[in-house]
Amino acid sequence: MKIITEPSSESWNELLTRPVIDAGFLESTVKNILQRVKSGGDKAIFEFNKEFDQATLSGLKVTAWEMEQAGNLLDHNLKEAIRLAAQNIKTFHASQKREGDKIETMPGVTCWRKALPIEKVGIYIPGGTAPLFSTVLMLVIPASLAGCKDIVLCTPPRKDGTIDPAILFTAQLTGATEVYKVGGAQAIAAMAYGTESIPQVYKIFGPGNQYVTAAKQLVALEGVAIDMPAGPSEVAILADGSAHPDYVAADLLSQAEHGVDSQVMLVSTSKSLVKKVKESMERQLNTLPRKEIAAEALKNSKTIVVKQRKTAIDIINCYAPEHLIIATEKNEEVANEVTNAGSVFLGNYTPEAAGDYASGTNHTLPTNGSAKAYSGVSLESFLKFITFQKITREGIQTIGPAIAEMAVAEQLEGHKNAISVRLNELK
Amino acid sequence: MKIITEPSSESWNELLTRPVIDAGFLESTVKNILQRVKSGGDKAIFEFNKEFDQATLSGLKVTAWEMEQAGNLLDHNLKEAIRLAAQNIKTFHASQKREGDKIETMPGVTCWRKALPIEKVGIYIPGGTAPLFSTVLMLVIPASLAGCKDIVLCTPPRKDGTIDPAILFTAQLTGATEVYKVGGAQAIAAMAYGTESIPQVYKIFGPGNQYVTAAKQLVALEGVAIDMPAGPSEVAILADGSAHPDYVAADLLSQAEHGVDSQVMLVSTSKSLVKKVKESMERQLNTLPRKEIAAEALKNSKTIVVKQRKTAIDIINCYAPEHLIIATEKNEEVANEVTNAGSVFLGNYTPEAAGDYASGTNHTLPTNGSAKAYSGVSLESFLKFITFQKITREGIQTIGPAIAEMAVAEQLEGHKNAISVRLNELK
Repeated sequence: MKIITEPSSESWNELLTRPVIDAGFLESTVKNILQRVKSGGDKAIFEFNKEFDQATLSGLKVTAWEMEQAGNLLDHNLKEAIRLAAQNIKTFHASQKREGDKIETMPGVTCWRKALPIEKVGIYIPGGTAPLFSTVLMLVIPASLAGCKDIVLCTPPRKDGTIDPAILFTAQLTGATEVYKVGGAQAIAAMAYGTESIPQVYKIFGPGNQYVTAAKQLVALEGVAIDMPAGPSEVAILADGSAHPDYVAADLLSQAEHGVDSQVMLVSTSKSLVKKVKESMERQLNTLPRKEIAAEALKNSKTIVVKQRKTAIDIINCYAPEHLIIATEKNEEVANEVTNAGSVFLGNYTPEAAGDYASGTNHTLPTNGSAKAYSGVSLESFLKFITFQKITREGIQTIGPAIAEMAVAEQLEGHKNAISVRLNELK
Repeated sequence: MKIITEPSSESWNELLTRPVIDAGFLESTVKNILQRVKSGGDKAIFEFNKEFDQATLSGLKVTAWEMEQAGNLLDHNLKEAIRLAAQNIKTFHASQKREGDKIETMPGVTCWRKALPIEKVGIYIPGGTAPLFSTVLMLVIPASLAGCKDIVLCTPPRKDGTIDPAILFTAQLTGATEVYKVGGAQAIAAMAYGTESIPQVYKIFGPGNQYVTAAKQLVALEGVAIDMPAGPSEVAILADGSAHPDYVAADLLSQAEHGVDSQVMLVSTSKSLVKKVKESMERQLNTLPRKEIAAEALKNSKTIVVKQRKTAIDIINCYAPEHLIIATEKNEEVANEVTNAGSVFLGNYTPEAAGDYASGTNHTLPTNGSAKAYSGVSLESFLKFITFQKITREGIQTIGPAIAEMAVAEQLEGHKNAISVRLNELK
């Protein structure tokens, strides 16, 4: 990790810039995949499964029998851990429910909003070396709480045509309505357009590689909603001399092990802490199975040392990290000054790993500085709000003339006419 | 309007398809504009103002003097109407505020969400024949209530270099922090990248022509948030024999006058109503200044007659209209069955024009069927939600083992280590 001391505020933007991800070169490949699924349907999916995942399948849908078996194949302790996490995530997301009041904005004019589930949602769970069942928790639980009718989950098959039992167990526990064996851009295409087996959905969630991200962006241009723009995962830690160097080091490493493109940043008012963290990281790094990945990620990472706590907070808000850990003497005070971040972890005993898995908050969060305008996934991500209004005879007589006045000023006489035709009859 | 009677449900999708808008051919033109603004800044903007709006300006920012003058140039009644509308819109959007509770998901593990304003937002108000001050109301009021610090408004200059006083009066009344004289794709570029005069923003709102829409989509791919995908405006009316044919006709016409690409649809269980509406529309159409536009829009529009109310509602939910007017004997019952719509208007005295201008609801709504997954603009559109969590010593001892278990199953030993390093010390 490079150490930068007291950088001038003019240099912040450049200092905090993430590496540019150019997905341009993928576009034609991904467009091709989308087109093949659009025209070929299931047939194209079977072909892609063979080509990309070396899996020859007889059917795309995970059967009821496969779902039932999953629980038997899983370690008891892991099942208990997943159940505990599910309960916390459920509790926190359920607390986000609310009903809008009916508001009489003026006599006889009543407006309200109603939250309704997005009827059909699609959830993508990547494959790879490890089964990301934690993302199943984070996306299926709020979908289920929102009341989405079709919760379609797609994940790539293993070479033997099966899906990791941890994914299936979690999908069943949380209420996914169907699971399909398909990954990559072809999974996004299947959910965006529908195939003979896989239903079309209105909104697609979930992480993935650059092909998946490009596919989500392309189908979004065609009108399918997506959760948010995706980028490599990141953590920033704001720590003073009161922080525990081993904890800070462990948290930085836990982010760095995600991938070589992970972003890790430490902003501190204490030179001595920075020194101790560096030493501790070297020590801890050697114990990790993914140490090559973490070491590579740390090459792009930065430690910034500043004098004032205020400056440290300003740097964090300028960076807008996906995850922010605050380990200082005055955590609540610092937290009150945070304006741009995805998810914030307060104090020495609140590691990012807690939010990644089990505390209750969602781990699908805005990366790449988009926390300046985007929120993480929440219950609302699976809802849409419809506004309603009802105006009485008296109401239209009160509000009508103002509407007519404004419509004329916008040269929309037809709008004025819609008022006049009523007011004339009520005279 | 074509009349279709009792269409089979298999034909609905095709029947309800909107005309495809192919923005592909604009892409290179718009990319060029974006690039010129990115590299040329203010200079490029001045050139575009000359080229596209025939306006030679000495400065881009509307001056304090111009802002003050605007009120004097406006008719008293119009100002009163705008004030009344502003008050209603403020009342309804203010009612959407809420604080999240702190939730203890398990002992010692506390999670909460905090709503924070998006610090810098951009609002685009199109030019054209009429000044769309109503859109200023709909976008600046919630931005202001949310607490956005920079509310940047861009709108094209008239040939004489001025901005319509109705726009400036409304911008000042509602709390826009600055107004710039620039339109089209170049305005979107200016707000996305920033120029010497015009500040960069994090999220861009507002309607516009195909160039503006394409520019918004392109900057969204670069990470700037946008309000929602845009398409031509639409209304569907669900009416039975109890509806007033003149009102239904007037409401259909008020939508049709927006533009030749407006979508207008009547779904009814009453053949006799349909007949009367048709006659009334012909009568009313002739009185409208924009009758050519409305007549053209009506050519693409449809009337669907069905026997059952249930079928009518199913068709509406399949169409997912931007605006839905319900004029039936049982409006509340029908409203309860609506699952896909942007904004719903109940009863004979609730014309769409009320929501367009003054009742309090927002008129920036999902078109083109995107109401299946998107909501209209609300207070939340100008906020982002940050999650926070705080775990105590006891909390991490309770939840830690489950986190470690899950981390190992996902092959992320660094995550487990972030837990162990704490638990070991607490032993």
